[in-house]
Amino acid sequence: MELFEAIKGRRSCRNFSSEPITEDIIMEIIEAGTWAPSPLNGQPWEFIVIEDNATKEMIYQEAERCRKWGEEASGWKWLGKYRVDFLKSAPVLIAVVGDPAKTGLDAYLDEGGVGYQYACAAAIQNMHLAAHGLGLSSLWFTLYDKKKMREILDIPPEKNPVSIVCIGKPAGEIPAPPRKEVKEKVRFVR
Amino acid sequence: MELFEAIKGRRSCRNFSSEPITEDIIMEIIEAGTWAPSPLNGQPWEFIVIEDNATKEMIYQEAERCRKWGEEASGWKWLGKYRVDFLKSAPVLIAVVGDPAKTGLDAYLDEGGVGYQYACAAAIQNMHLAAHGLGLSSLWFTLYDKKKMREILDIPPEKNPVSIVCIGKPAGEIPAPPRKEVKEKVRFVR
Repeated sequence: MELFEAIKGRRSCRNFSSEPITEDIIMEIIEAGTWAPSPLNGQPWEFIVIEDNATKEMIYQEAERCRKWGEEASGWKWLGKYRVDFLKSAPVLIAVVGDPAKTGLDAYLDEGGVGYQYACAAAIQNMHLAAHGLGLSSLWFTLYDKKKMREILDIPPEKNPVSIVCIGKPAGEIPAPPRKEVKEKVRFVR
Repeated sequence: MELFEAIKGRRSCRNFSSEPITEDIIMEIIEAGTWAPSPLNGQPWEFIVIEDNATKEMIYQEAERCRKWGEEASGWKWLGKYRVDFLKSAPVLIAVVGDPAKTGLDAYLDEGGVGYQYACAAAIQNMHLAAHGLGLSSLWFTLYDKKKMREILDIPPEKNPVSIVCIGKPAGEIPAPPRKEVKEKVRFVR
């Protein structure tokens, strides 16, 4: 697929078909992630590929818990109807786990390092594009408590389960959400 | 350019030719950024395009200050020789500014929102890929104090100057830095 076609055509998918994904395809998507840039080339990422239904169910339950918490905390009524079933129906979930020890110079800032998280986010964007380029669809998911996710996925306390990427064949067409005019977002200093 | 060719061929560039970039190309790169996903489609990004030499000089001076701070804080000797001249030689710097008010549900977490920063990082990765696809090269730069960068670029205190993307024609070939075997980074839960 052509690059700009991939960038503009990628959609966030919340309704997957159950069609399985081969290990080759999964590895191709993850490899795309690992080509992202990172502070000092630290490659501060690991990938946990979840295909097991019992583990998906635990992640789903945790997301449901956080959805209810979120509805209460925010007062956003639409969260009451928001379904996270895609965590069970997507054939593959990939947890992207970041290593704060590989964050580069910002490790020395008082507020702590974010560079490793930026690198993981860049890797995730590569993965979304790769999935789309391979005829699949994906979702960037973060609605869970990190401590709880460490327990579910057996992640050591010093690592950060940055996000979960849900991947599968989309069950239907996904319209592009409206975007602001690019010009509204840009200022020139000349 | 083909998607996977772009993902695997993108390099971090620290040596730019002074050849200018047209506004059309700049806007195309920024538009690619705006196709990234974001929490609740909040599009929590703004872009400041810096082509003015005096402003580049101020950013350079700030980066130099932070480089010296970093060398002292980390004890990393190589920082003594690290040049940030690319901040002056790159024809265009684009500051990507994030809006913490558009971070989605994680606004309600004690530790504060990171979702808007992930979205900005995804936008930046799209920009890197777009630049590469258009025959240019780029660098993801974060070595500056945020407060100072707000002053230089007249950014309000509630916004976060997440990163600066340096863009231009590369002045030479850039080898791919070594990457770990993908398999070393992956665990399956089946």
